[in-house]
Amino acid sequence: MRHTGKAARWLALSTRLATRLRTLQQQVVVVQLGGAAGTLAALGKEGLRVMEMLAHDLGLGVPDLPWHAERDRIGEVAAGLGVVAGAMGKIATDIALLAQTEVGEVSTGAAGAGGSGRSSAMPHKRNPVEATTALACSRMAIGTVPVILGAGVQEHERATGGWQAEWQAVPELFRFTSGAVQWVLRALSSLQVDAERMQANLNLTHGLIMAEALTTALVPHLGRSEAFRAVQRVSDRAAQTRTNLRDVAAADAQIRAVLSPQALERVFDVSAYLGSTDTFIDRALADFRSMRPQAPAR
Amino acid sequence: MRHTGKAARWLALSTRLATRLRTLQQQVVVVQLGGAAGTLAALGKEGLRVMEMLAHDLGLGVPDLPWHAERDRIGEVAAGLGVVAGAMGKIATDIALLAQTEVGEVSTGAAGAGGSGRSSAMPHKRNPVEATTALACSRMAIGTVPVILGAGVQEHERATGGWQAEWQAVPELFRFTSGAVQWVLRALSSLQVDAERMQANLNLTHGLIMAEALTTALVPHLGRSEAFRAVQRVSDRAAQTRTNLRDVAAADAQIRAVLSPQALERVFDVSAYLGSTDTFIDRALADFRSMRPQAPAR
Amino acid sequence: MRHTGKAARWLALSTRLATRLRTLQQQVVVVQLGGAAGTLAALGKEGLRVMEMLAHDLGLGVPDLPWHAERDRIGEVAAGLGVVAGAMGKIATDIALLAQTEVGEVSTGAAGAGGSGRSSAMPHKRNPVEATTALACSRMAIGTVPVILGAGVQEHERATGGWQAEWQAVPELFRFTSGAVQWVLRALSSLQVDAERMQANLNLTHGLIMAEALTTALVPHLGRSEAFRAVQRVSDRAAQTRTNLRDVAAADAQIRAVLSPQALERVFDVSAYLGSTDTFIDRALADFRSMRPQAPAR
Amino acid sequence: MRHTGKAARWLALSTRLATRLRTLQQQVVVVQLGGAAGTLAALGKEGLRVMEMLAHDLGLGVPDLPWHAERDRIGEVAAGLGVVAGAMGKIATDIALLAQTEVGEVSTGAAGAGGSGRSSAMPHKRNPVEATTALACSRMAIGTVPVILGAGVQEHERATGGWQAEWQAVPELFRFTSGAVQWVLRALSSLQVDAERMQANLNLTHGLIMAEALTTALVPHLGRSEAFRAVQRVSDRAAQTRTNLRDVAAADAQIRAVLSPQALERVFDVSAYLGSTDTFIDRALADFRSMRPQAPAR
Repeated sequence: MRHTGKAARWLALSTRLATRLRTLQQQVVVVQLGGAAGTLAALGKEGLRVMEMLAHDLGLGVPDLPWHAERDRIGEVAAGLGVVAGAMGKIATDIALLAQTEVGEVSTGAAGAGGSGRSSAMPHKRNPVEATTALACSRMAIGTVPVILGAGVQEHERATGGWQAEWQAVPELFRFTSGAVQWVLRALSSLQVDAERMQANLNLTHGLIMAEALTTALVPHLGRSEAFRAVQRVSDRAAQTRTNLRDVAAADAQIRAVLSPQALERVFDVSAYLGSTDTFIDRALADFRSMRPQAPAR
Repeated sequence: MRHTGKAARWLALSTRLATRLRTLQQQVVVVQLGGAAGTLAALGKEGLRVMEMLAHDLGLGVPDLPWHAERDRIGEVAAGLGVVAGAMGKIATDIALLAQTEVGEVSTGAAGAGGSGRSSAMPHKRNPVEATTALACSRMAIGTVPVILGAGVQEHERATGGWQAEWQAVPELFRFTSGAVQWVLRALSSLQVDAERMQANLNLTHGLIMAEALTTALVPHLGRSEAFRAVQRVSDRAAQTRTNLRDVAAADAQIRAVLSPQALERVFDVSAYLGSTDTFIDRALADFRSMRPQAPAR
Repeated sequence: MRHTGKAARWLALSTRLATRLRTLQQQVVVVQLGGAAGTLAALGKEGLRVMEMLAHDLGLGVPDLPWHAERDRIGEVAAGLGVVAGAMGKIATDIALLAQTEVGEVSTGAAGAGGSGRSSAMPHKRNPVEATTALACSRMAIGTVPVILGAGVQEHERATGGWQAEWQAVPELFRFTSGAVQWVLRALSSLQVDAERMQANLNLTHGLIMAEALTTALVPHLGRSEAFRAVQRVSDRAAQTRTNLRDVAAADAQIRAVLSPQALERVFDVSAYLGSTDTFIDRALADFRSMRPQAPAR
Repeated sequence: MRHTGKAARWLALSTRLATRLRTLQQQVVVVQLGGAAGTLAALGKEGLRVMEMLAHDLGLGVPDLPWHAERDRIGEVAAGLGVVAGAMGKIATDIALLAQTEVGEVSTGAAGAGGSGRSSAMPHKRNPVEATTALACSRMAIGTVPVILGAGVQEHERATGGWQAEWQAVPELFRFTSGAVQWVLRALSSLQVDAERMQANLNLTHGLIMAEALTTALVPHLGRSEAFRAVQRVSDRAAQTRTNLRDVAAADAQIRAVLSPQALERVFDVSAYLGSTDTFIDRALADFRSMRPQAPAR
């Protein structure tokens, strides 16, 4: 359930970004026609009409002015894709951390002996190659963003270096951002969750994950500061003695004085301590489903 | 006039960015409240209502889900300001290039002997300090963007390093972007244009700036390839002999055969070769004036 | 022992970098004196002698030529510190990963209830704040490197923006690199290792960490490909049945046919499988100890 | 002569960098062999000897320890090449600025009509394509440096993303740095200097370039502050009246009172105001010539 919430946030993040990319596309995909000096002078009185007709034929928007040396639209694209690359890196990092041998809550990739994630030196290891590759793509994509933003500092009506750097950097940005999306997709498509291990890891904390719930229950009785101190005391004792927090709390005089055994039982009911998780999951799914399928580009 | 067109594009660029920043502000300024695990569990059934009330009290938007570790909104801010920083760098670069001793078409800053741009070693020089400082700010601002995008790769529900890097990088991004805007403003507020020098520089090319006009006039008679070859030929001759292109063209047999002296006069009328410049200037001004003044932030 | 090897590599890394920084300092700390145009013309025939005397008085090296607009030395400093920042990030990352709740092999910081790493929302958690802060510093420091390298692209004898960006970026680079070093130092000074947990984590793999040793023992008998296949087979079986690899290997017909029970026992003796770790530790310590203490800067 | 000094600094810069790259190569090109966990355990007692033999066979240095996850050497390479890329950008920028239509002191590239630098829209323009391409390469190369330094933050003994990012970023760094060097070489190989235009540009300042010399001559008589004020006064007058500084100074009462006509003549003798330029040129050439030719890599 903990990771259902996590996956809902991954989905909400991806939906937000897909929506923004569509908006961005409409804003920035406009024609550029200006002639040698950006005045359309060579076209005489027909300059603006030619620009409009060209835009129409190419299925592009019509800008108010030629923008040859004002690269804000290119910068917006770089920025938008850079945010996507960062988001893919976040999802990939979560997966890689969950897949660590010592955590083991998920695995990814083909399961068989020839699976892509097999370590060559250590046959027992299943490396999260999809997440790892997504992370490499994410780093490369983000690395192009300052190059493109810096290349927006173009000289007069003709750049010396900035424009030419865009020819390299913009395709790389698309290539690596797209790579990050694809590899996250592969990781998620092949994701296997080990619910048993997940539960075991939760138990590793000796009930300490319920410390927030205990604090919340104590605050009305003890005030915030005293409640916090009490929970730190029993948390420390639980950690040092490797005893469950619930048992330590039940034996603590200050806590027993204000919380009955029944109240304590309700505090430590993990299944009741999901807050608004279900609502969040519903919302993330609804947002995703409300995205209109997008017609393919002309 | 050449630089009126340039200034119109500076204005159009700035208007586009101001408009986008306003849109961005509405998208990203939303409350974050999630509790220890992003579930609002400590608030029981009232979690969502508390989140909404907090947003209302702070004048912030209400997100669908808590987003503590999904930093796309922070990334959008970084990206949006990075584009602004790049745009300020473009305007500042144009000013610095125009202010070069050998070009001398503009100067900036206070005119008196104690003016800020005085070189300490060379009293005769007026350095474009406003543009130079804007450029330094622009570079610093853009430098923070990949740090912030990379910091968006945050671990689980709590980042180890990325979040903490934002604490440093986001204020710096605002500081330096704001600095770039302020210094461009100072440069433009104190801009002095030397129209005479501007005309003299145009004449430096021996009429070669009208090569596009000549090509355009020849294409209907000679076809594109042949027209281009003819213009290269007379351009080279004009440059080598330091003669005005108009005189060289008037003496060229192939060109004389298709363009009458009257036609040639019209081709070389610089004042008629402004294309849609006036329309572009009108549009840039209209777009700027149509921006609603923005109420100050609460 | 596994982590003794890791710490030895941290030490070797730090020793290499400290040594290189000393070399770098000698290379780059040279005087700059050139006058308005880098010719020392204002000093007549005495220019070079004045430059040498100034260098001597300031305790700086003497360059062959003035270098006002050739920023390679500044770039070398940026690059050298950027490598240090990356190295500190590596050590901090290792610590943060070892300190994860699910791994728990190390903890850092003051142990008491008021220790700096206490989570405000979750009293039971001890966040690795030292490592986390070091990572934030590392990211910020690395972020300044391309700004400084890009600022090395300076115009003629006087930069418009690049030089001024250095004024901001170079101090930040020193500040954040130094911060990264200091926070790694604090993390290491307060590092507490949980050897028991470390052993337990090793056991989590059901002996699979000895897969390399088993492969090595089988290669002389089965050839590399066949040995690798055999180890994958028993590794998969061990993982699926949660049985120790040793027991699975002992029951495997192909392996039993070539390795006696005694041979198998030697293969799975972890304490004998440390390779050259001890030598590496000795070398790392010797390299560190051989660094001469450095006299404080004048 | 002014640009001879500039070229000497370009040469000194290039010589310094070539020397450092050779040193760097010896430091960082060492073998990596560690086995699955960096302990050489699979090789038993022979691990170190195998590592040494492998290094010998490959013509590589022998490190003290395996360094699989300590990427300082890769970082040093990135840093060293990034400095080279910045330096190439500096030279290319100088060339591009000198080649501006309004400056016109140099041109580059093939001279003929089909020369690579022909503008397609403006046949009369010779764009400095070599310098421009070098600048684009320089920006791309520098853009990879923070990616590589950041990728040095690798996890434990196996990176999740950083190592994989190096596979993309390191070849790109070499490709683009090498591209920057090659294009600067082409620009310099085809460089044509217009000495006449250079002199004309110097005259553009109405003798103001000698302001430093005048200040220097006045300081012994007037003190630094008063000399500076006097030079500002006559500089302003020269600029406003477009009169030569020499004539304005000769007519200024305060200056006439302390400098005789003969003294003033010596002050304004440009050919005597080269300071140590010749020595610097000789040194730059000597340093370059003293570089031993390097044997090709094995």
